[in-house]
Amino acid sequence: MTTLSNTRTVRIEWADCDPAGIVFYPRYFEIFDAATSALFERALGMTMFQMFKTFNSAGYPLARTRARFVRPTRYGDDVTVETTINFGHSSFDIEHRLSHNNLTCVECSETRVWVVHDPAAPGRYKSQPVPEAVRAPFRA
Amino acid sequence: MTTLSNTRTVRIEWADCDPAGIVFYPRYFEIFDAATSALFERALGMTMFQMFKTFNSAGYPLARTRARFVRPTRYGDDVTVETTINFGHSSFDIEHRLSHNNLTCVECSETRVWVVHDPAAPGRYKSQPVPEAVRAPFRA
Amino acid sequence: MTTLSNTRTVRIEWADCDPAGIVFYPRYFEIFDAATSALFERALGMTMFQMFKTFNSAGYPLARTRARFVRPTRYGDDVTVETTINFGHSSFDIEHRLSHNNLTCVECSETRVWVVHDPAAPGRYKSQPVPEAVRAPFRA
Amino acid sequence: MTTLSNTRTVRIEWADCDPAGIVFYPRYFEIFDAATSALFERALGMTMFQMFKTFNSAGYPLARTRARFVRPTRYGDDVTVETTINFGHSSFDIEHRLSHNNLTCVECSETRVWVVHDPAAPGRYKSQPVPEAVRAPFRA
Repeated sequence: MTTLSNTRTVRIEWADCDPAGIVFYPRYFEIFDAATSALFERALGMTMFQMFKTFNSAGYPLARTRARFVRPTRYGDDVTVETTINFGHSSFDIEHRLSHNNLTCVECSETRVWVVHDPAAPGRYKSQPVPEAVRAPFRA
Repeated sequence: MTTLSNTRTVRIEWADCDPAGIVFYPRYFEIFDAATSALFERALGMTMFQMFKTFNSAGYPLARTRARFVRPTRYGDDVTVETTINFGHSSFDIEHRLSHNNLTCVECSETRVWVVHDPAAPGRYKSQPVPEAVRAPFRA
Repeated sequence: MTTLSNTRTVRIEWADCDPAGIVFYPRYFEIFDAATSALFERALGMTMFQMFKTFNSAGYPLARTRARFVRPTRYGDDVTVETTINFGHSSFDIEHRLSHNNLTCVECSETRVWVVHDPAAPGRYKSQPVPEAVRAPFRA
Repeated sequence: MTTLSNTRTVRIEWADCDPAGIVFYPRYFEIFDAATSALFERALGMTMFQMFKTFNSAGYPLARTRARFVRPTRYGDDVTVETTINFGHSSFDIEHRLSHNNLTCVECSETRVWVVHDPAAPGRYKSQPVPEAVRAPFRA
């Protein structure tokens, strides 16, 4: 079993909202991006940056994302973001569910790839298996 | 035939990029959002706001979006965004292809719904067929 | 005496940082904007939106802002934002001090005006004295 | 004489606007940041990044900024940004005037410092005179 969830509360700020009075949808992806790093930080006890340094990684760039917008959220809403990870070999899938008052507002699935600097091609990256020491804390 | 494409060049700005030196992916959705309104503005000869007012619409909220990130783009890149629309009944699909030097960097598909204020429920919206006068200019 | 301070901790997110690896300065203004509404929310026990509705206000638009950037902050920094208000008649001044490990990183002063809808000119605003009920909680 | 101006037109996008229907002020600073690099790019014929590389600079971080908000701007407005530079020794001042229909909407002054990597302190920067080759094109 290599799944772990993290749940956090996020305040919808004025900066997140558009003239329709609702969240401008690109801002949801900022919320989800922060939720992904918060999940790793909670599991490993270090920030994403420290994790990349510790494991000699060049990052976990996004390969694809899909989102479904079910209900709008608004300034002042304290929304809940539940984030779940499922590891593949050299990639992992993340599911985010953003809800308000227990009603789902946005669902998002992303696939990210664990990459390292390619020694054969300076400035390039190549995928690599997610280190066991990164996966292990998610099994606790 | 109800398809039209629009192509525009967008400069990747410092504001769009993250500490990895590449575009922070939520900013691609800002670029795509602007590309969608630019497509309508080109076809109808009025801004999105004027269009909503003219056709008594409450907007075209995003129902879902999917994106695939193939190659990163960087500060100073002048990227090309090709945007294509396909109308359904009360919704439409938009495809965006963002490329640099003729190489695809990001592909995105979004589905949006044409909505009006619901007279039966103040503050609520309901979907409605896309007006013929909105579709017509895309057939020219 | 009409002064109150609020102090909050803010995590610098990936979304806030630029290719130099430091906070892209416009994002500091998002942090300060949220700090201003947090101050009012703490004093009045309602969100900024609820406050505007309660007091029939059209908002407190920014008239001017000045900021001094002393030290950069980076992804993963948990910074402290101290926010202090001083009321004038129909405006107020806000001072923000953003620090990391007790070292000042950014200082910002903003002046905002309390406005209402102008009954004589639809779509226009006019300044108005800050209601006593808004000031009072800052004296407690 | 070391002054040069650049003028550009910027479309106010949906992404720039807040629930009050006007530009969310931190976005003005994104517009001004891009206007500053556009000024250098126009004068030197290379992007800001290429300029930093060419002159072995570590950047021109912002030391301070001040802005005055006179009139709001809205989605769909095509605003004009006039940007003027005045060089000091190792710093320079930039003035931005953002107007719509010839009416001033925002005035901004920023001071930036030309920095290089400090050989005596890895990871640190120190100010340095703006290279003559950077100033020269502004005198043409």
